[in-house]
Amino acid sequence: MADRVLINGAPSVTVSAFDRGLSYGDGLFETIRFVDGVAPLWSRHMDRLRESCIRLRLPAPDAPQLAREAALVIEGMHDAVVRITLTRGVGERGYAPPQAAAPTRVVAGFEAPSMAGDVYRSGLRVRWCDTRLAAQPVLAGMKHLNRLEQVLARAEWSDPALGEGLLCDAEGQLISGTMTNLFAVLDGVLITPALDRCGVAGVARAEILASRPGVRIQGLRPAELARASEVFLSSSVRGILPVQALGDTVYVAGPVTRALQQHWRGLGFPMEQA
Amino acid sequence: MADRVLINGAPSVTVSAFDRGLSYGDGLFETIRFVDGVAPLWSRHMDRLRESCIRLRLPAPDAPQLAREAALVIEGMHDAVVRITLTRGVGERGYAPPQAAAPTRVVAGFEAPSMAGDVYRSGLRVRWCDTRLAAQPVLAGMKHLNRLEQVLARAEWSDPALGEGLLCDAEGQLISGTMTNLFAVLDGVLITPALDRCGVAGVARAEILASRPGVRIQGLRPAELARASEVFLSSSVRGILPVQALGDTVYVAGPVTRALQQHWRGLGFPMEQA
Repeated sequence: MADRVLINGAPSVTVSAFDRGLSYGDGLFETIRFVDGVAPLWSRHMDRLRESCIRLRLPAPDAPQLAREAALVIEGMHDAVVRITLTRGVGERGYAPPQAAAPTRVVAGFEAPSMAGDVYRSGLRVRWCDTRLAAQPVLAGMKHLNRLEQVLARAEWSDPALGEGLLCDAEGQLISGTMTNLFAVLDGVLITPALDRCGVAGVARAEILASRPGVRIQGLRPAELARASEVFLSSSVRGILPVQALGDTVYVAGPVTRALQQHWRGLGFPMEQA
Repeated sequence: MADRVLINGAPSVTVSAFDRGLSYGDGLFETIRFVDGVAPLWSRHMDRLRESCIRLRLPAPDAPQLAREAALVIEGMHDAVVRITLTRGVGERGYAPPQAAAPTRVVAGFEAPSMAGDVYRSGLRVRWCDTRLAAQPVLAGMKHLNRLEQVLARAEWSDPALGEGLLCDAEGQLISGTMTNLFAVLDGVLITPALDRCGVAGVARAEILASRPGVRIQGLRPAELARASEVFLSSSVRGILPVQALGDTVYVAGPVTRALQQHWRGLGFPMEQA
């Protein structure tokens, strides 16, 4: 549970039972890592939130206000995660969006999740999920509140030794993890799947694309991973996570993974030295 | 807004900001029409809710308890709608469902929506939506809380003269309205689209299928509607709604539509005589 929560700027832990976020998943969220009060990827989170609000026709977020509220809910925490949830607010029954929406803003602070000591060095064991992501271009890329696909995919396993599950779309193209984006080095080129039909375009992925020229965004088949020299996952909360094993295929974190982990440390995120 | 609400059996109008219904749309809902305290389609609503709970691995609903709570929230109302929302309850951050979920149960009573006097006689004007429904077999048919597609589709028009919008899937197959199921009479045969890849399998649709042998569930192309002799929409809240016009095509409610409206009146739903 969150340590501190502000709802529309006021301390509270409840929302209206008629909030469209609950009724229809009509809204967006961001989970943002703060280290000693600083969120190195803050502006990328605000970029995604602003662009997604345009796509869902939600009023533009007030980024300075969100920054002030985020600072309040993590006061005194060394390493924290802020979840911002933005919904279309309370509405009458029915799908039609209210003419003048009064969005609901939930800003909640949590301690950052603890990561096993050797995750950044040795990497995660990862599995394939049976759940497929549906192709829906008008929702693709956004971190919206319709996340049943991820819930069902994550429910496929309970073995704590498995750190993530990988998802394909209905055509069998590899898209992402349940809560991470995926990168692979193939023939010396860093590749990440296109997310214009499904998947969440992660903020950590955006940081990688901006900081490292030449990353290729393209379709990726599961079978191609077998000949990848490196495979890693990205998450704005967890950072750069090498994949150690995927089914029977074993990987060793290579120079691209290590360079991006180094970049992550340079941003100010604590990640145990390799 | 609802007149009366029970949350987990107690009068309240708020839910936890950490309810998985809000965080991820992790839950289901039903909207059930009651006339003088009786819900003629109650058992069909409970059937769908029970089957959907199995598919989402939610604990089975307690139907007698829901019936008692529904009766409380509509006490004294002549014509009412009860919305039951069932979520996976409050959870820690992350998609993984809690080992022991304590579902949240919202039971809210509303006055039934008023329908224009001649809707049942003359029918609705209907439009095509640009929004396409994504194919997702593991979610298809359920009335789950991930409804952004319907919200975006319904946001496509604001002309009150248009009563509903029709949706196709990505392959251009006709699926349903934004809040209704669709039926058409072609060559004397009543047809309704298959909903195994997307769409909500409505309770009114289930009643029609059960009461009228020989309805064909099959793919339907928009162009085929041009030669339909009758087109109508079904809704457990609104009943049997003839389509009067769809773009430039005009329809007149025929014998199949009228027979099903008669059946609806026989169930106890008030629908103005044709």
